Amino acid sequence: MDKETLEAAFEAGQDRMIEKWKEFLSFPSISADAAHASDCVNCATWLCDHLATIGVQSRLLETATKPVVFGELPGAADAPTVLFYGHYDVQPVDPPEAWVSPPFEPEWRDNRMYARGAQDNKGQVFYVIKALEALIASGVELPNIKIFIEGEEECGSDSLAAQLEEWKDLIAADVLMVCDTGTQIPGTGCITMGLRGIVHFTATLTGSKYDLHSGVHGGKAPNPAVAMARLIATLHDDEGHVLVDGFYDGVVEPTAEERRLANEVPFDAAAYESETGVEPAGGELAFTPAERIGFRPCLDLNGIHSGYGGAGGKTIIPSVATAKISARLVAGQDLGAVLESIVKHLQRHAPPALHLDISDQAVGGPGLRLDIDSPILQKAKTILRELTGKDALLYWEGASIPIVASLQRVSGGEPLLVGFGHEEDNIHAPNESFSIEQFRSGFIYVGMLLSSF
Amino acid sequence: MDKETLEAAFEAGQDRMIEKWKEFLSFPSISADAAHASDCVNCATWLCDHLATIGVQSRLLETATKPVVFGELPGAADAPTVLFYGHYDVQPVDPPEAWVSPPFEPEWRDNRMYARGAQDNKGQVFYVIKALEALIASGVELPNIKIFIEGEEECGSDSLAAQLEEWKDLIAADVLMVCDTGTQIPGTGCITMGLRGIVHFTATLTGSKYDLHSGVHGGKAPNPAVAMARLIATLHDDEGHVLVDGFYDGVVEPTAEERRLANEVPFDAAAYESETGVEPAGGELAFTPAERIGFRPCLDLNGIHSGYGGAGGKTIIPSVATAKISARLVAGQDLGAVLESIVKHLQRHAPPALHLDISDQAVGGPGLRLDIDSPILQKAKTILRELTGKDALLYWEGASIPIVASLQRVSGGEPLLVGFGHEEDNIHAPNESFSIEQFRSGFIYVGMLLSSF
Repeated sequence: MDKETLEAAFEAGQDRMIEKWKEFLSFPSISADAAHASDCVNCATWLCDHLATIGVQSRLLETATKPVVFGELPGAADAPTVLFYGHYDVQPVDPPEAWVSPPFEPEWRDNRMYARGAQDNKGQVFYVIKALEALIASGVELPNIKIFIEGEEECGSDSLAAQLEEWKDLIAADVLMVCDTGTQIPGTGCITMGLRGIVHFTATLTGSKYDLHSGVHGGKAPNPAVAMARLIATLHDDEGHVLVDGFYDGVVEPTAEERRLANEVPFDAAAYESETGVEPAGGELAFTPAERIGFRPCLDLNGIHSGYGGAGGKTIIPSVATAKISARLVAGQDLGAVLESIVKHLQRHAPPALHLDISDQAVGGPGLRLDIDSPILQKAKTILRELTGKDALLYWEGASIPIVASLQRVSGGEPLLVGFGHEEDNIHAPNESFSIEQFRSGFIYVGMLLSSF
Repeated sequence: MDKETLEAAFEAGQDRMIEKWKEFLSFPSISADAAHASDCVNCATWLCDHLATIGVQSRLLETATKPVVFGELPGAADAPTVLFYGHYDVQPVDPPEAWVSPPFEPEWRDNRMYARGAQDNKGQVFYVIKALEALIASGVELPNIKIFIEGEEECGSDSLAAQLEEWKDLIAADVLMVCDTGTQIPGTGCITMGLRGIVHFTATLTGSKYDLHSGVHGGKAPNPAVAMARLIATLHDDEGHVLVDGFYDGVVEPTAEERRLANEVPFDAAAYESETGVEPAGGELAFTPAERIGFRPCLDLNGIHSGYGGAGGKTIIPSVATAKISARLVAGQDLGAVLESIVKHLQRHAPPALHLDISDQAVGGPGLRLDIDSPILQKAKTILRELTGKDALLYWEGASIPIVASLQRVSGGEPLLVGFGHEEDNIHAPNESFSIEQFRSGFIYVGMLLSSF
């Protein structure tokens, strides 16, 4: 189907689409909250039934936690196979009082849908399904299509990744289509070319058996809070470069072309500061912000806690200090090996008078970097150019979609990550929303893409 | 009264003493917590009434915060005046779940009293009162006795110090008797020859307006938790020496004799480790532990908090980090000037992309160092020798009793600091306790001392 036909189909069908979309959004499918386990199952069942009504064979795949909604639509015998990945689970809603309309009573205001999941990822999943519905109804020739919509992405997809091999044949594909990303510049198409992986753990430094009196023991007992601060301070130099031996092992340097393209995405430091409240002055200052996020691993504290934190003062030498440490790692890095390097560094630098314990070690999906010369990328660029009238931006993302690298490996599909989120959609925050223009762009993009094989 | 008579009086009265002591301990007189303001007043009223029942004229002196319990017992016309200082307020109890028995339901186990304040300072105040009761009942000749028991010591006695001049005549004395210290070696008397002063404040580093996603912003946004750790790490060198310009200004070096006496107090590093759980490996390693505590100022973190601290991980760049910083300063130092030096150091080293705020600045009483040749010291040494059969130790303490230096100045009384606390009493910690042997030693010491003028 061409752009004009899809536009007409969207015009004709949008009211019905909005009504069904509201049904999908009304399930409080919060995967992180055990109290919502049955809501997740109900949401998956609804989605499975809905796929059947548009003509896709669908069923639930059981997992250790939330079911996967799996659908199949056979195409021509020699056609390639497109595997679409998305997720129906959503983030928690707190603080609930910050929502203008209740998060699971979708409200249409000023041509935007307001609800938890309105964008991430139910909104983006739903334009894919609606585009597919239009394509099926039109009788146009399609590739083989497989749909894989999971229910634990917001919890890290851990148990799913472990189970993926079981479904190797079921999910085998040529292209892995993901619509869980955004556009850096509204009105411009954006193709995500990389993701970072993540490892994290908890470091605990223990000194005395109980908090000591800071007068009686100050200057005599070692202080775990000070020692943890000094230990953390060994991790970076003054320019933000990580000093852990082996931390940069495996980092695939970007090509000159990748670096040029990453820096071509407009970045307005003043707008960043106005939005977040801080200058983009973190990380390795020798690199541009786009390079730091896209091509460089980073090492951060997600939390540090020791001793007293209330009003005024308390005269203690704390007995224990904990730090939540995480690293975002890039394509080519062995996550487990880097995690071990960080732990070894801490062990080498911890003061001998204190006890260092490492716990909660977690290794997420690996980093991902896609080929800027691949045919599927060229296809997406052409479509996005036709859709928006502008060259698509290529964007190397700093965050993770944990399952994508695993799905790529098991399914054999080449990832194509295009989405239509904006910063203002407030994903993971109160008053999440998605506009009709964003939904429409996604609908037309998917329609054109699936018609192009 | 002589030692034997006092021992007999203690045997005869101890059950009644323990019952009354429990009443005193049952008031949750936590001065730092506004929710306990009326408990403090109730405790003071109870104590005032109790002094009246043993024959001491008593009343409450109003202050800007908690009342002072003041008592007077006139002695012979030409007798010297002894001013006894103590405090009825106690430390907070957290974590409450760590207490074997509730902190304000005093429990007698294995000949120890368990309760918040069992030692610090209600326990030591109470043996003074009970000894005085026995002396009054016996009709023995006594010096003029003044009792001054305050209710904001655990908050630093700030408002009290400011008001002290008003009571100049009321509290005029020859000797300032304080029983708020301990013995380094159980079974040996110990005279405290020095105290450190204290300053403390809160440092807050603020970055973004809200916690940021650590994938999207990691390596781009500055991290206040890491920055706070790096800032704290600038305070000391690897040998524990403080690197703040001006931190050691005014430090009075000990004489060779003071140094010899301080190092003569037996210090068993293995016993210290066994008791506290850590080696005495903190502070300035160029000095002995006794010198570090007694003659050197120190700079510590009492707490540091930022970001996530729960189970597992949370992928955020925290928006804010706070540190509770305190310094123990010695005789001769200008506390306000040193506090300002530390703040200036932090301001100079804080990263420009983050906002540093300094709050809750508090300046306690100055450090104190007493004369090793004074007559009252000789008197106490003689009594402690008779009580224990051993030479008393002279000890330069690392903690503060904020008001003592001010009381010395205004009352004219020469301080005599003898107490019977042990390390195992867990003052300021859960399961604070005080044994019957300690209480008894205090009772007999006070009885002999007040009989000796």
